Amino acid sequence: MRTSEEYTSDLEKMEENVWVGGEKTSRTNELFQPGINVINLTFEMAQEPEYEDIFTAKSHLREEKINRFTHIPQTQEDLMKKQKMIRLGAQRAGGCIQRCMGLDAIIALSFVTKDIDDEYDTEYYDRFTDYLEEYQKKDLAAACAQTDVKGDRSKRPHEQEDPDLYLRVVEENGDGIVVKGAKHEITMAAYADEIIVIPTRAMAEGDEDYAVSFAVPGDHENVRHIARPARYRKRKGEKAPIAEKGVAESVIIFDRTFIPRERVFMCKEREFARMLALGFANSHRHSYTGCKPAVSDILAGASALAAECNNIERASHVREKISEIIGNAELSYAAGIASAVEGTETPSGTYFPNPIYANVGRRLMGEEIYNEYSNLTEIAGGQMVTLPYEEDFINEETGEDLRKYMRRNPNISSEDQHKAFRFLEDIGASSMATWYQIAGVHGGGSPIMETITLMAEYDTEAKKNLAKYLAGINENLEQDTKFGADVTVSR
Amino acid sequence: MRTSEEYTSDLEKMEENVWVGGEKTSRTNELFQPGINVINLTFEMAQEPEYEDIFTAKSHLREEKINRFTHIPQTQEDLMKKQKMIRLGAQRAGGCIQRCMGLDAIIALSFVTKDIDDEYDTEYYDRFTDYLEEYQKKDLAAACAQTDVKGDRSKRPHEQEDPDLYLRVVEENGDGIVVKGAKHEITMAAYADEIIVIPTRAMAEGDEDYAVSFAVPGDHENVRHIARPARYRKRKGEKAPIAEKGVAESVIIFDRTFIPRERVFMCKEREFARMLALGFANSHRHSYTGCKPAVSDILAGASALAAECNNIERASHVREKISEIIGNAELSYAAGIASAVEGTETPSGTYFPNPIYANVGRRLMGEEIYNEYSNLTEIAGGQMVTLPYEEDFINEETGEDLRKYMRRNPNISSEDQHKAFRFLEDIGASSMATWYQIAGVHGGGSPIMETITLMAEYDTEAKKNLAKYLAGINENLEQDTKFGADVTVSR
Amino acid sequence: MRTSEEYTSDLEKMEENVWVGGEKTSRTNELFQPGINVINLTFEMAQEPEYEDIFTAKSHLREEKINRFTHIPQTQEDLMKKQKMIRLGAQRAGGCIQRCMGLDAIIALSFVTKDIDDEYDTEYYDRFTDYLEEYQKKDLAAACAQTDVKGDRSKRPHEQEDPDLYLRVVEENGDGIVVKGAKHEITMAAYADEIIVIPTRAMAEGDEDYAVSFAVPGDHENVRHIARPARYRKRKGEKAPIAEKGVAESVIIFDRTFIPRERVFMCKEREFARMLALGFANSHRHSYTGCKPAVSDILAGASALAAECNNIERASHVREKISEIIGNAELSYAAGIASAVEGTETPSGTYFPNPIYANVGRRLMGEEIYNEYSNLTEIAGGQMVTLPYEEDFINEETGEDLRKYMRRNPNISSEDQHKAFRFLEDIGASSMATWYQIAGVHGGGSPIMETITLMAEYDTEAKKNLAKYLAGINENLEQDTKFGADVTVSR
Amino acid sequence: MRTSEEYTSDLEKMEENVWVGGEKTSRTNELFQPGINVINLTFEMAQEPEYEDIFTAKSHLREEKINRFTHIPQTQEDLMKKQKMIRLGAQRAGGCIQRCMGLDAIIALSFVTKDIDDEYDTEYYDRFTDYLEEYQKKDLAAACAQTDVKGDRSKRPHEQEDPDLYLRVVEENGDGIVVKGAKHEITMAAYADEIIVIPTRAMAEGDEDYAVSFAVPGDHENVRHIARPARYRKRKGEKAPIAEKGVAESVIIFDRTFIPRERVFMCKEREFARMLALGFANSHRHSYTGCKPAVSDILAGASALAAECNNIERASHVREKISEIIGNAELSYAAGIASAVEGTETPSGTYFPNPIYANVGRRLMGEEIYNEYSNLTEIAGGQMVTLPYEEDFINEETGEDLRKYMRRNPNISSEDQHKAFRFLEDIGASSMATWYQIAGVHGGGSPIMETITLMAEYDTEAKKNLAKYLAGINENLEQDTKFGADVTVSR
Repeated sequence: MRTSEEYTSDLEKMEENVWVGGEKTSRTNELFQPGINVINLTFEMAQEPEYEDIFTAKSHLREEKINRFTHIPQTQEDLMKKQKMIRLGAQRAGGCIQRCMGLDAIIALSFVTKDIDDEYDTEYYDRFTDYLEEYQKKDLAAACAQTDVKGDRSKRPHEQEDPDLYLRVVEENGDGIVVKGAKHEITMAAYADEIIVIPTRAMAEGDEDYAVSFAVPGDHENVRHIARPARYRKRKGEKAPIAEKGVAESVIIFDRTFIPRERVFMCKEREFARMLALGFANSHRHSYTGCKPAVSDILAGASALAAECNNIERASHVREKISEIIGNAELSYAAGIASAVEGTETPSGTYFPNPIYANVGRRLMGEEIYNEYSNLTEIAGGQMVTLPYEEDFINEETGEDLRKYMRRNPNISSEDQHKAFRFLEDIGASSMATWYQIAGVHGGGSPIMETITLMAEYDTEAKKNLAKYLAGINENLEQDTKFGADVTVSR
Repeated sequence: MRTSEEYTSDLEKMEENVWVGGEKTSRTNELFQPGINVINLTFEMAQEPEYEDIFTAKSHLREEKINRFTHIPQTQEDLMKKQKMIRLGAQRAGGCIQRCMGLDAIIALSFVTKDIDDEYDTEYYDRFTDYLEEYQKKDLAAACAQTDVKGDRSKRPHEQEDPDLYLRVVEENGDGIVVKGAKHEITMAAYADEIIVIPTRAMAEGDEDYAVSFAVPGDHENVRHIARPARYRKRKGEKAPIAEKGVAESVIIFDRTFIPRERVFMCKEREFARMLALGFANSHRHSYTGCKPAVSDILAGASALAAECNNIERASHVREKISEIIGNAELSYAAGIASAVEGTETPSGTYFPNPIYANVGRRLMGEEIYNEYSNLTEIAGGQMVTLPYEEDFINEETGEDLRKYMRRNPNISSEDQHKAFRFLEDIGASSMATWYQIAGVHGGGSPIMETITLMAEYDTEAKKNLAKYLAGINENLEQDTKFGADVTVSR
Repeated sequence: MRTSEEYTSDLEKMEENVWVGGEKTSRTNELFQPGINVINLTFEMAQEPEYEDIFTAKSHLREEKINRFTHIPQTQEDLMKKQKMIRLGAQRAGGCIQRCMGLDAIIALSFVTKDIDDEYDTEYYDRFTDYLEEYQKKDLAAACAQTDVKGDRSKRPHEQEDPDLYLRVVEENGDGIVVKGAKHEITMAAYADEIIVIPTRAMAEGDEDYAVSFAVPGDHENVRHIARPARYRKRKGEKAPIAEKGVAESVIIFDRTFIPRERVFMCKEREFARMLALGFANSHRHSYTGCKPAVSDILAGASALAAECNNIERASHVREKISEIIGNAELSYAAGIASAVEGTETPSGTYFPNPIYANVGRRLMGEEIYNEYSNLTEIAGGQMVTLPYEEDFINEETGEDLRKYMRRNPNISSEDQHKAFRFLEDIGASSMATWYQIAGVHGGGSPIMETITLMAEYDTEAKKNLAKYLAGINENLEQDTKFGADVTVSR
Repeated sequence: MRTSEEYTSDLEKMEENVWVGGEKTSRTNELFQPGINVINLTFEMAQEPEYEDIFTAKSHLREEKINRFTHIPQTQEDLMKKQKMIRLGAQRAGGCIQRCMGLDAIIALSFVTKDIDDEYDTEYYDRFTDYLEEYQKKDLAAACAQTDVKGDRSKRPHEQEDPDLYLRVVEENGDGIVVKGAKHEITMAAYADEIIVIPTRAMAEGDEDYAVSFAVPGDHENVRHIARPARYRKRKGEKAPIAEKGVAESVIIFDRTFIPRERVFMCKEREFARMLALGFANSHRHSYTGCKPAVSDILAGASALAAECNNIERASHVREKISEIIGNAELSYAAGIASAVEGTETPSGTYFPNPIYANVGRRLMGEEIYNEYSNLTEIAGGQMVTLPYEEDFINEETGEDLRKYMRRNPNISSEDQHKAFRFLEDIGASSMATWYQIAGVHGGGSPIMETITLMAEYDTEAKKNLAKYLAGINENLEQDTKFGADVTVSR
């Protein structure tokens, strides 16, 4: 397994094909350091003995210990450990642990390539397995490039005025394929070893060229990243783990990029595009039942800390508001557990989470994220946005004033009060806070996407039949005794 | 295992100690038939081969097949099957399956009696085990009489002006004890074989006489029931399973009632009252993650049926509203699964569901039940309350008018439209509908009780420590890697 | 002005053309008495000196004092008094005051007939004014028959398989017209003097025959009512005003009914159908900003009464829940005031409420009604559905038990506790409660209808232009300084 | 009336007593320019002919035209124009117009000083009137310094360990008083001409020294500001009005500050502290029924703009989400109108808004603000947080990529798309967005404060009496025919 130092050293060796702030730059630009600090945790926690069982796994390919962020779940237990790993990692990261993007991409490819081969006698599964072996051995971190820029939302890929608004195959030969287009909103791409490309949606007739999947190194020829980093405010005085964390999204331009054959995992099999898109999405929504509870853990903890600072921990409306956040976290986490327990084994051996539970668990968090911030705000008060700048605490004269007058709970030192409210400002009143709000709604699919997935897979007819039986319209009732437990991802 | 016929025949043999509508009456009064019809399902489904695995179990006492409604869970799987049995039974019953009341009472007693014995060298566990053996052998159905009338809510039991406002021990001798007081809102008591009494709350110093638990036959000497039956409207024309179902609650008066020693399971061990009260409540909240999803299944099915009648099934806001009900059902059911998966084995061997998940799952349903009726109403429209009486459909002249003008979706016959809207009237616009609304909030504990239980058991401090670590206040973070999985019921 | 006795005597004189429970019956059948009791209040309160200013007005036609339920608003103040009258009447009625149905119908006709005449040189306005003069002089109570049975909701009137599924003109001659079809869900029709018919929606090309409006006496030839009465439970012991109130809806069959010319107010002018439909709907939604707050007043009062009975009035979550109900009531009432203040004078002189505010005020109540019941339930507890029958309080033996054990707040007598909980059962746990829930959503238009009306009339483009100005896309900003104050009903 | 140029020139003349970022600085530091730009609008709009009626008024003191931001409302109409002025100003400012802080302070003082004089024969009213005359003549802009730092929230002012944690009188003599303490979270103080100090709460026995009110110039001796500016991101490329706006809050230290007698408006009359605190708060909550709708106008406009960019304007869930924002805005604005209509004249002649409606209107917005952001996010999508930096649009190479790939609705130019999404980033995904979220909850009092005020003033007993009448507990009903219309602020 790689160490975080080796990961940084690998990033340093990569070609410069990343732009940010109008300039081409290296991957170790300090703008990316907050994101790199998050990925580092995934290497570091795998080395910590108390996390060994959770953050590492035995590869089903090679019987070796690997980082669980590269492991394809083979059992219910694997799914539960993956979920737990993500919650623990995200707690430590102060939010999004990022690296599950690549993990969910390889999980989806691990069974969809098998299904395509079974239908078309292609060789994607073996290619992918070779790739996976390398992925596990080198302990790679990949971004999953799914979201196309999509142009006019009312038109399908092949109907767009500009045919490049979805990524597409423009040439194909024995050695490989040439692709053109762009993916955007791609988290961690600027500091990922690899980019794994999958389709963003189901593809209809006419969309064949857009049904494409492959993997390339992040610095592959004719690939350009335009990165948009985001971070908490840099500290001038007191240090805090939260202040060292961040993220970056990229627009990735594929400018007639050649993809060698051994890295191509789908090429124009359009009727499998939905399965691959949803295979990733549903696996990722199961990941969200790990990370979103962690975000809520932090918001609940921040609220409890604010209540302690304000000496209002016992007030019943404060406890009620905190318990709402906790309830969301545990309901979503429970949905993840149920999704694992009611998962299914695919023909490839990959154990896949139940999509009904993954979708209801993820949707809840998208619906509740802004309410959780509202609860935090009610408890923490206005000081999150009115706290004077750090420099005014450092300045001798004003610092003395502030230490005298900012004191609240007399059992907490002025210094800890300041640290607490600086943290609350970061968590609740920074542009990074809005990143979490918006990612809470849209990351991994917005509530409306989960409703669509849910209603597509759910057996609503069985409920209607129950009503018809009770109403005396149908005489017999054939009850569904599995409650959706055998649902999996369909084409 | 008993049959439903044997159950009725047993009810017929009981002494008349039930009052309703100002008169003393037998247990087979037709006012109770709708409730008896529900209990009958628990006997009948246990005889159906396709439900054998779910509705029956092997007793841990006698290695015999028993009705699962009398079985003490010994494993995770038992807990999941209990939850599934309740959902399936409640679907068939068109709502509350009732018999889990007694089941959750024996579950709570099965481990709390052991804990008391371990502390005080009493013999409650053996007494209870004898009772349980009889309970399983005779396939008994018990009401759990927990809720005291409670008088002034701002005072503890021993502080009430009238000391009888909580049930209490007034005499004690070698043969047994004498109790006085009343329990109210006791579901199914009027047609239960047995009444199992447990405390309603934690008992403080001074409340010793109120810490009492025992079981008596429903027609025990010096016990009186004042019953309040509720049912769907009786049909005059079209038959429908829903219209045959109902329930009854009782005020049960214990008028200096003698309880023989072998039926006494707690007597004045006040510091175990909380454990027994919560042992029942939390087990019962786990049951609710089975039955409340069934209520939502029916509401979702009724909504879908109404949408079909109105020919608006494809409308996006209709699908959205139905998917909200479904989401609630599956989130709560998922919480029940997680509660089973993260359950714990007690010293007695009883496998107990995780209370965090049971409480968040139950709470969700209490918070959402009125919203679900609101969704049904939005889809079904006003006709639920404006549908002419059945007689006007039967009357030749007006019947013809109504058949002509009540037709909506042209693919559905007038007769089925009528059945559907008659059913919708029952489900959404009857006094029985309000029973489900109110039981949805209060049955098994209202949202505020679940919040209190949750906040008592949940490790909020761990979340605050996470915040302090991220804020730089605490240097190290000791992460809770179990997320409350080892929580159980404490005294 | 009529007295309630005269009203009853007028009802007695009417032809029997009402069916209920399979039989033809008179209008003074005791099934209708609860509804009649409500209408009586509108006559009685107009005679009470302290309500004179609110419940009576000076007619703009005859300079005489008339019952305000027959008055066409001529000023802002008239609109505010109408709203206040409805809230006061509805408080006294324990809910829906019913008679505003006819009032809003004559208001809509008072200006739409003028607009049709202005366009087509017809003589509807004069006809209607003659009718109005009679209406005011005789102090009539009319039902407004708007809602057609509508058949397949996905088709327009003229597209239905059966052309009678919307009411239509089937013949037309110098003396009048002949109509066929049915209206349903028509509140108070069974005990109304008059039926005023208006279209249910905008009419498109091809729908001309369906654009029809007229008024007939309730017992007009070839008109049949199939009534569906609803009431609170009849009391066997304690009397209570709430228990004397109720309502009835009718399906009204027009079986080739002849309408004399002088009673026809629209005939095939299809492009004015929307204006008449919405003219009624928006005026009625303004009425709802009076009656829905009254329903909330009752729910808030019931909640406060329950809190007093339970001795939990000071608990902060109880106060919070009550204040939510109060907030809804006052926000909706405020919207009604604003709707009056920002109303407009139509060419006919009728002062018409601003539809933006009327719609947002009405919508709020539709969205919140179930939440208000949920709040009541949280405070009142389960006893609303478990209270033993009245007879068991009357029975000597059980009555004594119940008086002893039902006591809660020691400052409230057992008798008042019983009255309070009997009332709470009526308000929160009866089929009449569901009537209020469903009417709260759908009466006068459901939230989705108000959203549609709102978005049709609201100047969303002005908001978008504001955004474009702030974004630097548009250089200049022309601000709307009226905020929709000049919106009225358009065709 | 002053011009914005004169205002700036006045700021330049002030003593430097403001600290920011660790340094003492002038009021025209560019960090304050965004806030000054907002205040400028209040001078500029008063000069624009089309706003004359709204932004100016005739002084009741001097019969001269004055800026309405210095005018004491004398009529209902004044209150409505004040509300409208604030909505229009806030629309133009892209949010908080700030200057109503001072306005609401002088409104509260205008009648409370009279009330104190009436009780104690003091001379505050005349002093204040002299001050007001100057305030109107010089067209001053004042900050209202109400919020004390408050220390331990569980203790009253005189119970704090450090007696300075609420501002207090430490000396008093014929010439004036000396005060010590700090106010914090004081909006616009850094660029206000004046600071008006009022108490933050009701004062109990023992708190006399803390009942103090006065006005001083912003640069008064022994006054120090520690300012915390906030602004939208500075633009590097495209200009936009939104990007020029901002705000600053201050901690204001009163370091044994002498206040001359003629500027003291309350000194130790502790039983009037509540009236002054609430007089300001309720007037300010009425102001919020102007500005909060403007914030919602902007969010609705931004959502509509995003929908246009994404070409999804017709989607029904998009329209639903926008209509929710609009509904909130208009309900709150309606509450403000009702508050004006049902206002009362105080003994001083000041016309005061009805507090019931002001509080329900303000509370709604505090409860809904995060939901409105959630709606914006659902419509606008993730690009608010993933949009590359401006420099990458300016850079030739990446700019070309971005223009090609960021295009959505084909009817909108790339340039306008970029402007729109840059604006959406500012509105929805910036630290300034969190300022609006938090100010939306807490500015002018959080929902819990409005609930407390509401429940203190509302006649809940009248609702309970209504319930008792309907229940048959009370025989007669005395109806409140004003529905709280005569409520005003009490001590």
